[in-house]
Amino acid sequence: MRRLINRILNYSSPDKQLLLQLEHLVGFTPKHIAYYRLALMHRSKPDDVTASNERLEFLGDAILGAIIAEYLFKKYPYQPEGYLTELRSRIVRRETMNNVALRMGLNKLVQYNQNDRGLSRSHIFGNALEALIGAVYLDQGFANTRKFILNQIIRSYIDLDTMESTDTNYKNQLLSWAQRNGKQLSFDLIAEVNEGTRKLFTVGIMLDGTVVADGTGYNKKDAGQVAAKNALEKLGI
Amino acid sequence: MRRLINRILNYSSPDKQLLLQLEHLVGFTPKHIAYYRLALMHRSKPDDVTASNERLEFLGDAILGAIIAEYLFKKYPYQPEGYLTELRSRIVRRETMNNVALRMGLNKLVQYNQNDRGLSRSHIFGNALEALIGAVYLDQGFANTRKFILNQIIRSYIDLDTMESTDTNYKNQLLSWAQRNGKQLSFDLIAEVNEGTRKLFTVGIMLDGTVVADGTGYNKKDAGQVAAKNALEKLGI
Repeated sequence: MRRLINRILNYSSPDKQLLLQLEHLVGFTPKHIAYYRLALMHRSKPDDVTASNERLEFLGDAILGAIIAEYLFKKYPYQPEGYLTELRSRIVRRETMNNVALRMGLNKLVQYNQNDRGLSRSHIFGNALEALIGAVYLDQGFANTRKFILNQIIRSYIDLDTMESTDTNYKNQLLSWAQRNGKQLSFDLIAEVNEGTRKLFTVGIMLDGTVVADGTGYNKKDAGQVAAKNALEKLGI
Repeated sequence: MRRLINRILNYSSPDKQLLLQLEHLVGFTPKHIAYYRLALMHRSKPDDVTASNERLEFLGDAILGAIIAEYLFKKYPYQPEGYLTELRSRIVRRETMNNVALRMGLNKLVQYNQNDRGLSRSHIFGNALEALIGAVYLDQGFANTRKFILNQIIRSYIDLDTMESTDTNYKNQLLSWAQRNGKQLSFDLIAEVNEGTRKLFTVGIMLDGTVVADGTGYNKKDAGQVAAKNALEKLGI
């Protein structure tokens, strides 16, 4: 404890401020602030791109995936593998994580080139959240990272019930739009490729005989969802 | 210790035999043999498909991904994220894991429908290895699973140097075949889709004006490799 206090007292003033903000955000006192500083550094900011959070994002993304997998495996003991895979992909997807990061206020801490207006509309905050998970893992080990993810992310910001039930949302949205507008719509499997230990499916969406979008996923249903989501975006629905 | 010995003494004879085989394979004494029994059960075997190893495979795949990510993150402190992602995908890919499983002798323990001849030529042993990782995690926790993966899998069976250097192998193989046979070959990016927190690229291979194969990956280089590998298979090269 004394060592921890000394360490905090020894921090320079901007470090002290970041430490307080981080404590609030993660729910514990970070030991090595350098990891966190790196996690909050978008590659648009430092002169040297290797001084950005991308490597930590790679690590954090993997740790997050493992902890969510275990959480779902135990929470849904009677659901098949496909169900768990789908639900996990919905939790860790870019939009969800970015949304969580914004609600946590992580956007106020991320360092990025503010002149590039497009950045704040992209998913850099969700990516920084993954990098933060990587930093927590290096700083605190597996058990504390697990607690952080389950308490500060899943239980605080993820509504699993809604996530389970919004299942066929994009596909349904697109189908009902097509029906309302008298368009002919079909979902076609256009590719099936081995990737790593899994099969990757690409589903294309035909609208009145023209391919308007495609989507990829580890099962056909997921791929259809991604394709439908892309079609909705392209068609401005 | 006495409790452990009692537990082993209480096992029925087939359990005792499996326990000895597992000890040899994983390098420690399993506590809960039921997890391991499930990990070794391919879905072609039990009457009830939910009594198969697919859920454990989902869990083990995620744990493996996280531990390999950390291993590479620390082993290659100066390599960018793309390099780590690519190297990891090469380690955890279906073929690599199946090959490791065969060299470990896991094929002798997996329960599957032996009348289905296609199965033994597919990747069911690699999948069982992932399920075994899931079982080890539930039985032994994170730290011991990490040791198991690093010692019994990575350091024993994965030649990282070769894996790093065989980098452009498939693409090179295909290119030199095309040159030898006077064929016109091109690699084209045919799709770019957001999937979860990453971008997924699909690369197609044109041979004398016809698409012969495609491949998907989290960067264009990876996708090109997968596409080239698929083309080599299709063309029987």
